[in-house]
Amino acid sequence: MHFRSDNAGPAHPSVLEAMIAANTGYAPGYGAEPLMADVADKNRMLFEAPEAAVYLVATGTAANSLALATYCQPWQTTYCAPVAHVQEDECNAPEFFSGGAKLTLVGSGDKFTADELKAVMAEQEVRGVHGAQRGPVTITQSTELGRLYTLDEIAAIAEVTHGFGQKLYMDGARFSNAVAALGCSPAEMTWKAGVDAVSFGGTKNGCVGVEAVILFDPEKAWEFELRRKRGAHLFSKHRYLSAQMAAYLADDLWLTCARAANANCARLAEGLKGVDGVSFLHAPEANALFAEMPREMHRRLVEGGAGYNLWGEPMSAIHEDGGPILARFVCDWSLPAIEIDRFVEIARG
Amino acid sequence: MHFRSDNAGPAHPSVLEAMIAANTGYAPGYGAEPLMADVADKNRMLFEAPEAAVYLVATGTAANSLALATYCQPWQTTYCAPVAHVQEDECNAPEFFSGGAKLTLVGSGDKFTADELKAVMAEQEVRGVHGAQRGPVTITQSTELGRLYTLDEIAAIAEVTHGFGQKLYMDGARFSNAVAALGCSPAEMTWKAGVDAVSFGGTKNGCVGVEAVILFDPEKAWEFELRRKRGAHLFSKHRYLSAQMAAYLADDLWLTCARAANANCARLAEGLKGVDGVSFLHAPEANALFAEMPREMHRRLVEGGAGYNLWGEPMSAIHEDGGPILARFVCDWSLPAIEIDRFVEIARG
Amino acid sequence: MHFRSDNAGPAHPSVLEAMIAANTGYAPGYGAEPLMADVADKNRMLFEAPEAAVYLVATGTAANSLALATYCQPWQTTYCAPVAHVQEDECNAPEFFSGGAKLTLVGSGDKFTADELKAVMAEQEVRGVHGAQRGPVTITQSTELGRLYTLDEIAAIAEVTHGFGQKLYMDGARFSNAVAALGCSPAEMTWKAGVDAVSFGGTKNGCVGVEAVILFDPEKAWEFELRRKRGAHLFSKHRYLSAQMAAYLADDLWLTCARAANANCARLAEGLKGVDGVSFLHAPEANALFAEMPREMHRRLVEGGAGYNLWGEPMSAIHEDGGPILARFVCDWSLPAIEIDRFVEIARG
Amino acid sequence: MHFRSDNAGPAHPSVLEAMIAANTGYAPGYGAEPLMADVADKNRMLFEAPEAAVYLVATGTAANSLALATYCQPWQTTYCAPVAHVQEDECNAPEFFSGGAKLTLVGSGDKFTADELKAVMAEQEVRGVHGAQRGPVTITQSTELGRLYTLDEIAAIAEVTHGFGQKLYMDGARFSNAVAALGCSPAEMTWKAGVDAVSFGGTKNGCVGVEAVILFDPEKAWEFELRRKRGAHLFSKHRYLSAQMAAYLADDLWLTCARAANANCARLAEGLKGVDGVSFLHAPEANALFAEMPREMHRRLVEGGAGYNLWGEPMSAIHEDGGPILARFVCDWSLPAIEIDRFVEIARG
Repeated sequence: MHFRSDNAGPAHPSVLEAMIAANTGYAPGYGAEPLMADVADKNRMLFEAPEAAVYLVATGTAANSLALATYCQPWQTTYCAPVAHVQEDECNAPEFFSGGAKLTLVGSGDKFTADELKAVMAEQEVRGVHGAQRGPVTITQSTELGRLYTLDEIAAIAEVTHGFGQKLYMDGARFSNAVAALGCSPAEMTWKAGVDAVSFGGTKNGCVGVEAVILFDPEKAWEFELRRKRGAHLFSKHRYLSAQMAAYLADDLWLTCARAANANCARLAEGLKGVDGVSFLHAPEANALFAEMPREMHRRLVEGGAGYNLWGEPMSAIHEDGGPILARFVCDWSLPAIEIDRFVEIARG
Repeated sequence: MHFRSDNAGPAHPSVLEAMIAANTGYAPGYGAEPLMADVADKNRMLFEAPEAAVYLVATGTAANSLALATYCQPWQTTYCAPVAHVQEDECNAPEFFSGGAKLTLVGSGDKFTADELKAVMAEQEVRGVHGAQRGPVTITQSTELGRLYTLDEIAAIAEVTHGFGQKLYMDGARFSNAVAALGCSPAEMTWKAGVDAVSFGGTKNGCVGVEAVILFDPEKAWEFELRRKRGAHLFSKHRYLSAQMAAYLADDLWLTCARAANANCARLAEGLKGVDGVSFLHAPEANALFAEMPREMHRRLVEGGAGYNLWGEPMSAIHEDGGPILARFVCDWSLPAIEIDRFVEIARG
Repeated sequence: MHFRSDNAGPAHPSVLEAMIAANTGYAPGYGAEPLMADVADKNRMLFEAPEAAVYLVATGTAANSLALATYCQPWQTTYCAPVAHVQEDECNAPEFFSGGAKLTLVGSGDKFTADELKAVMAEQEVRGVHGAQRGPVTITQSTELGRLYTLDEIAAIAEVTHGFGQKLYMDGARFSNAVAALGCSPAEMTWKAGVDAVSFGGTKNGCVGVEAVILFDPEKAWEFELRRKRGAHLFSKHRYLSAQMAAYLADDLWLTCARAANANCARLAEGLKGVDGVSFLHAPEANALFAEMPREMHRRLVEGGAGYNLWGEPMSAIHEDGGPILARFVCDWSLPAIEIDRFVEIARG
Repeated sequence: MHFRSDNAGPAHPSVLEAMIAANTGYAPGYGAEPLMADVADKNRMLFEAPEAAVYLVATGTAANSLALATYCQPWQTTYCAPVAHVQEDECNAPEFFSGGAKLTLVGSGDKFTADELKAVMAEQEVRGVHGAQRGPVTITQSTELGRLYTLDEIAAIAEVTHGFGQKLYMDGARFSNAVAALGCSPAEMTWKAGVDAVSFGGTKNGCVGVEAVILFDPEKAWEFELRRKRGAHLFSKHRYLSAQMAAYLADDLWLTCARAANANCARLAEGLKGVDGVSFLHAPEANALFAEMPREMHRRLVEGGAGYNLWGEPMSAIHEDGGPILARFVCDWSLPAIEIDRFVEIARG
């Protein structure tokens, strides 16, 4: 009954098999191995973006920080939602990699609207050289609260972003879950909607540790490469990143895993729906469910062996007195249905 | 009729006279001149802080950025109000000098309460290594909206700050105006209330360009000196900073100027009170008044020769249609009463 | 006939097997998995350092940059040899991670003496606040030119370093090769000789991508963790780093691989010794050989299928006219003896 | 008998008079005052560069750091001489302002040749993404050892610099002394010889604290403004910088002062020439003389009231036993001839 994070589950066996298959003989390092050329091409095909620059890094924070820094000068600000991973969970990595750029928070949760963005970006006008200058916009898809931006919402945000001469980045740590949920193509959810760069996350969805950063306009490709090296994120034995990504792309493993994860979350939501005392923050749209539950239900679940995190509070809060508490349940591809059902059963009491 | 900023007015003649007096013969540079030793001592006496480290820089942004960086590691966050100068008007200087630390906004305006601060600082608990770590707190006294923290409010904020093991910094660009308004001593408004470091601003209050940074605990004095040099803020001909500060301290010029500026603001507020269509954001407490006025009143004032800034909008907004607009009026020590009265007369129409 | 780099060869099969073995079920991430506790303990035992802090990262540049930044303030300088990896091959990563600290070059090659270090560190005295301040010292063992510091040399350098109140770091990308060559213990080559922190490299010696950073004094352990996270080098699925390190430690795989690599290099040197026109930069002491050869010998080797790099020049230089050129030959554990012999045969012509 | 530094002397009276003249009534700040427009124009005329962007800062380190950072990406390196001020006397300010770019040392002293530069810049070729990338070149004119680059030497260095696609910056802390010595025009010594940006120093030559940074190609002007603000070097009461520069330009005060300083140095050299035991490092070319003297001569001079610095050693070295020691004598415009003569007399014994 593991709902702590989609990065707590195992890698898909075929990913490790690909790493073993790559483990033969000598290969040039640093991304110069033939496998990387192949992986880059396959990503370009998947994204229908023949000109795109494609790079691999091993962590989501590296993908976000390097991509945003590429589009954000140190005297500028990146616009993001208040619960964005880049704001809350990267220990100032975006500020570090950008050389001290600011993050400006838009909206009040995991998503913001084009209008909210426009209002905040317009504000900068009055300060001239004194204020932080406008920089890129980042959205997370699916969001940190398990929701989705629709294609229209993305396009509207892109329009505002571009209207101010800036770039739109998509934190795609759970990119596949979003594509699976929306039933669109990777291209539709990115450059066709105006996204300029995206991270195509593998780590949370069946890989060992790999994220592709895709710059649809390759103009800053060499700068990205220098930033990656300077950030110590260029792997010498790069073939093991390439191998993961090759396996991830083969037979649409990325989509298969994402569908499985989303289905697991739907099963969980279905099971909890109507359980006395349980209410959802919102209907789950991808692979994460946020549900409020009475404290004794939490205690029962934890004693029963369930693993998950409270939202905004340490797990110890369930032992205090008080009302219901919000918890986050993230489902990965590998969760057995029987475990989900057992969890629901305990919740029901 | 100049209300644009207290840094648009002239320096007090005695400040320039002191610079000329210092302009004789050779003197060691970089703060090693005898005059600086004297100035440091006088600051320590004024602040009743015999152990304090005292440094001079030429801009308020330098004072803020260097002091905050001294107490904020790159992976930490500085807590400040949303309209704090460090957040809005320094083009990411705090992020630059700290090596990429974050600013976390507390409250919704120019002031925040100890309780608001406590709630925000407590939040950090749940994120461990993933979130920005807690760092120093900064308050501006008097604030960017012309208000004051009472001594009790400062003490309460200091208690929360210290409770989390952090330092409290006071942006004293308008320190003198606050002391004049509160009728307290510099010591009472700083270390006696728990402030760990302060900038004692001269530039906005009669000097050419000088701010004293006072670290009540000298433990980090040498680090501050290195940061000042590395930031290119250590003056070779430092005697001209010392001379300004010497004049500023002599015969309490700092207090005389501040009282004059505050009195000018009071006269302006008195004159505008009750004028049809004029309303104050709040009663002015130091030397700045924020007042909402009809657009045609703005047009009349500007055509009549008045100089000031709108708040959050360019001056051109007065030529658009629409309702009343908020303006900021800052008074310096040199404003002639007759000009204030003329302004009021035009406003009355 | 692959001599390009010890990071161009494959990982040892048992390393990948360990990764597969770790790929079962759920595990806490970010180094909180039980396997990491075990790996840390085993490292402490290997280094006879029960108090040491042990961390894993995936690249050698990350290990170097994070460790050095932990001991180097932005206004300080790190002392290193001119051909040190940190100076030549990390695209300013040390400057980036330290927030702009300098690198000061000592000596003229890959090694420097305690006396050379002392002279350079002493120089700083005369500049006071104006010059870069003294920071840590880093040595590479085995060096970038395939040589070794003796235990006495290390101890002498440590004494100078500590005499100036600074820390000594050892870049151990090829740590195992050095231990194997010196026949000493890891403890003898590090803290017993005065080394304060070391990277224990796995990537170049049979792993997929893992380096242990060991801080013998754990005082700055938490700072290191924050720097690792902020640098985007904290892996969510950290178990796959732990698994590699576990395999590397098991049955002294690190030592077995290093001995094999060193033996391969000795075989190469033995074969080339006395070949007409070939001269060694110095007798190889670990797993790298630097040899000068006539251009036509280079052409013959490359045409015959050999892979290696020239030192200080692009490979295309072999097609130009001129005298002999220096080449670097690095041997990894997996090189078949028959390939080495074939190489020698071609060189002999 | 003050030879410590040209920043230890007083400001020229007309500079302070201009500051007083500027101290009337209100003026927009931050460089928007009318006086700055005038000063910028006059600088453009002096440099025969109608398109140039002209900015004022208060310290030489600020001028150097901001200008170099504008032309040096964080993953690049700036090329400079080993005794360059930016390398030795700015406590890592260039590294700080550039976000961690490296400094690569060329030659072995205060000057380097175009050939030496070419050889070092060419080296970068072989490292690709791994090494620091090429960035701007900086030369100091007159140099830190009181020497001059000829116009031809500058042009040759510019050619190499531009050949690698980089920019040439001139640290002109003692720009005026060089122009006075060479008898050329400011344009000839800068853009006509290929210099892309220069600092035109006032502080060491009669001003209180002002340096003009002149970018001959204004393409990066706005970036420079943002960097200046972010570095806390944009003065609110900017008129006092403008006033200094206005006085400095009026009636060629810059040239008058520089000629006086150079003449003082020539008088000193003339007086010391042939004194027993005195030898010059080289013939002085501007306003600094480096002379080796016996220790007892040093003691006699210091006891007689002379002020100067040893080169590379603390003044206390004169009390130790040993051979002659090298000292630096810098002459400013204000040195009375009688003091120079008295110094020479004491030296003669």
